[in-house]
Amino acid sequence: MADKQDDKDVPQSYGLLLFPQFEVLDAAGPIEVLNVLSNYFVDSKINLSVITPNKDLVSPGVGQNFLGNQLYKPTHSLDDAPPLDVLIIPGGRGTTGTNEELRHLLDFIRDRFNGASGHAPLKYVFSICTGSDLLARAGVLDDRRATTNKRAWTRVTPDGPKTHWVANARWVESGRVWTTSGVTAGIDGMAALVGKIYGEEVAQKHVRVTDPSNDPFAEQNGCKDVLPLRNT
Amino acid sequence: MADKQDDKDVPQSYGLLLFPQFEVLDAAGPIEVLNVLSNYFVDSKINLSVITPNKDLVSPGVGQNFLGNQLYKPTHSLDDAPPLDVLIIPGGRGTTGTNEELRHLLDFIRDRFNGASGHAPLKYVFSICTGSDLLARAGVLDDRRATTNKRAWTRVTPDGPKTHWVANARWVESGRVWTTSGVTAGIDGMAALVGKIYGEEVAQKHVRVTDPSNDPFAEQNGCKDVLPLRNT
Repeated sequence: MADKQDDKDVPQSYGLLLFPQFEVLDAAGPIEVLNVLSNYFVDSKINLSVITPNKDLVSPGVGQNFLGNQLYKPTHSLDDAPPLDVLIIPGGRGTTGTNEELRHLLDFIRDRFNGASGHAPLKYVFSICTGSDLLARAGVLDDRRATTNKRAWTRVTPDGPKTHWVANARWVESGRVWTTSGVTAGIDGMAALVGKIYGEEVAQKHVRVTDPSNDPFAEQNGCKDVLPLRNT
Repeated sequence: MADKQDDKDVPQSYGLLLFPQFEVLDAAGPIEVLNVLSNYFVDSKINLSVITPNKDLVSPGVGQNFLGNQLYKPTHSLDDAPPLDVLIIPGGRGTTGTNEELRHLLDFIRDRFNGASGHAPLKYVFSICTGSDLLARAGVLDDRRATTNKRAWTRVTPDGPKTHWVANARWVESGRVWTTSGVTAGIDGMAALVGKIYGEEVAQKHVRVTDPSNDPFAEQNGCKDVLPLRNT
């Protein structure tokens, strides 16, 4: 089929990067898409690793009046994560730390994206919501197009000064870098990526938005494109 | 404020019931709503317990080509769960077992809903997707209105022969029983319940569908209302 990848390039090893105060729906939306659509893959398996900084249990971000525990148990740490073809990165309050606080996460993302420490470069990196802030700070978005949560627009876009930030986008595909907008946009974005990798007939099993510029939140939040700073 | 509950009736103890092969997004959607909107509660806290049958780690349902682990760590078992005001029940393949296989879950739901074993009756039970099948089999939907995932319509509705099953509904409120339609409808339904409990001004912080009959999946799947069997 012309609309899907050659079999030799089909990703098999997926990683979900979780960290304290990630946004729960950012992570769950794309994983739901993979859980469901993997029923329809032909001659492909996917193997998901759930990766946290030190293999600790992690809890998502909650409101100030929320008590109780929501605990996610990882399969790997940053240090022992297996070779990965696709890395999925949610957003959330956990992306707002300083570069120093987030250094291990940023190093992991940069190394895996570029290929380092004996690992092949990622075939795809996929961020949801403010997960793109981690990509920007890791340098992955330099000289690329990207988007992010429109409610965090003015916070995130300065972290990618060499990036063309696209306001009116539920998701943006820029080579092997896919960034999606707020929270539920990750669902539609992942369905689009599944369509690219496994064929559109698989993705069509999922009810979804298929127009990446269908994003009412850009206008609602008064977001305009942000262009890369000129190197002058 | 006239549009929210008296403070004395405001729920404080929430339970999320998880079981093997639950649908990951069914659970994550409403929890995301609570995580976010609990920032805006006034004079209210919510305390969430995550409850699994034997306090085992549970994994959601995945496709036949999906490998790897997605592990959720509970805080309680069915036997040691604390007093609850609200019980949230996702759907998924895990709801398709026999009544005998699901007996502990069904007993727990029935006992907590009705008030048994020294516990006060739930203030609300809230199901997502085919979680309503568990409610139906526990008898909770008898003489009530309810809905479910439109793709599972013909499987689920016979399990509630005394129920008026509403086809064109993203969610249905029937007293203290709230049932929602497929997967993401749980997000809008939970926002509506938050509006009822904590006031509409809290719920409006969330971008959402506010018309419960806004459900294109009913027509798409050819679902018509199913009325209770007459006791003749």
